[in-house]
Amino acid sequence: MDNVTDAAAAFAHPYYPVTAALPHYVANKNSVLSLLVFFGSIISFVVFTAVAGARNAYPQLTVPDQLTVAWFSLCGFLHCFFEGYFILNHKSLASDQSLFGQLWKEYALSDSRYLTSDPFMLCVESFTVLVWGPLCWAIVITTAKRNQLRYPFQIIMSVGHLYGVVLYYSTSLIEFYSNGVSHSRPDFLYFWVYYIGFNAPWVIVPAIILYQTTIHIKRHLTDRADVVAKLNRIDGIMGDKSWQTYVPQDEEKKTS
Amino acid sequence: MDNVTDAAAAFAHPYYPVTAALPHYVANKNSVLSLLVFFGSIISFVVFTAVAGARNAYPQLTVPDQLTVAWFSLCGFLHCFFEGYFILNHKSLASDQSLFGQLWKEYALSDSRYLTSDPFMLCVESFTVLVWGPLCWAIVITTAKRNQLRYPFQIIMSVGHLYGVVLYYSTSLIEFYSNGVSHSRPDFLYFWVYYIGFNAPWVIVPAIILYQTTIHIKRHLTDRADVVAKLNRIDGIMGDKSWQTYVPQDEEKKTS
Repeated sequence: MDNVTDAAAAFAHPYYPVTAALPHYVANKNSVLSLLVFFGSIISFVVFTAVAGARNAYPQLTVPDQLTVAWFSLCGFLHCFFEGYFILNHKSLASDQSLFGQLWKEYALSDSRYLTSDPFMLCVESFTVLVWGPLCWAIVITTAKRNQLRYPFQIIMSVGHLYGVVLYYSTSLIEFYSNGVSHSRPDFLYFWVYYIGFNAPWVIVPAIILYQTTIHIKRHLTDRADVVAKLNRIDGIMGDKSWQTYVPQDEEKKTS
Repeated sequence: MDNVTDAAAAFAHPYYPVTAALPHYVANKNSVLSLLVFFGSIISFVVFTAVAGARNAYPQLTVPDQLTVAWFSLCGFLHCFFEGYFILNHKSLASDQSLFGQLWKEYALSDSRYLTSDPFMLCVESFTVLVWGPLCWAIVITTAKRNQLRYPFQIIMSVGHLYGVVLYYSTSLIEFYSNGVSHSRPDFLYFWVYYIGFNAPWVIVPAIILYQTTIHIKRHLTDRADVVAKLNRIDGIMGDKSWQTYVPQDEEKKTS
């Protein structure tokens, strides 16, 4: 009798698959709207502060660079804090009534792996919190400080985002197509809006940044070779080797 | 009685976990030594041909660049052909007697997920075959043709390798530590040599390439900005705007 009651309790939750064992589940006490207002406010505050800080450090920051700062501060906040919260509290998340806990329970309607301590999610999210989070903030800082490291960093982070989302989508979909197990409720809101929609920016934006940054680096490295050749011609005209201090000879041999 | 026989047949294999269902398993017919000689010969042929081709296209190719061509042609071959073979034949791999099939069965002693059509492996390996394989060959070609795209490509590929290996190791180890399920035989040869050792180059080499390429791009972009500033000063001295043709103004505003 006790076993039957336990089993019934374990499956008394709104998540898919319905057989997921979540005996500690407790329904959210706040409304979705209030959770979203809270989350939107924090995110707006973080992004606004980051962009204002970067403009303060470099007042001529262009609009595209301000958008870069906005995007990577958004990602840095989510990776370090929101996903960090998941890593620290994944075991008890199904009964968590903090604001972040309730947000995770709402999102998990579209992917219950966040409540069941799924091993793949723990691996991906640990790496995200420890490596990708700090890297996003490094991009914010290098962009504001006009440090050229931002370009290789942007490529590294965008590949991380794209590869991560592809594996996030595909590991879940392959289970659905091969075993018929879905981690998402089938409702339009949860599957299409939460699961597909909320993750789609991490396909679209990184793809754009990756393309633009690749072209930027390619053009500037090629251009550098031309500029260097020009300086060497000026040397010839002016009979003066002083410009060559800008072109280490051993470097030049390797890249021209 | 039939069920008992079927069950015994399913577990009659040398792989871990011993409960993995591989009823179609057939032992390799060739010796490990002969398989390794065969594999080593193909790999040597591919790498030698790629390096020779690149040196033919650009005779002054430096030794570090020849090593780059060697590494990415090795990866390109493994991703497109060896891992491509896995993707095409994973369902029947446990009974496969082709040379690639036998090599996979030997390697799977260190990770049985390759014989059980593990969903995570199928996702990672599909992406590897379709995206990383062609990208490796693109790096071989751009290096031989002195195209500066090789640098962003090298970063993209090295992040892909590092992230892939980290997830490959961690998804397996987390199962071992949380559920006690090991996909590798515990023998020193299989766990330490095959599982850890054979994959370790995809941590070490990409880490070195990623570091060197990041520094290379950073230094050359910074250097270019200095050269551009110098050219603009020459303008001032010579009262002539001709050097500015090397420095598109809209570009400069964004990157200096």
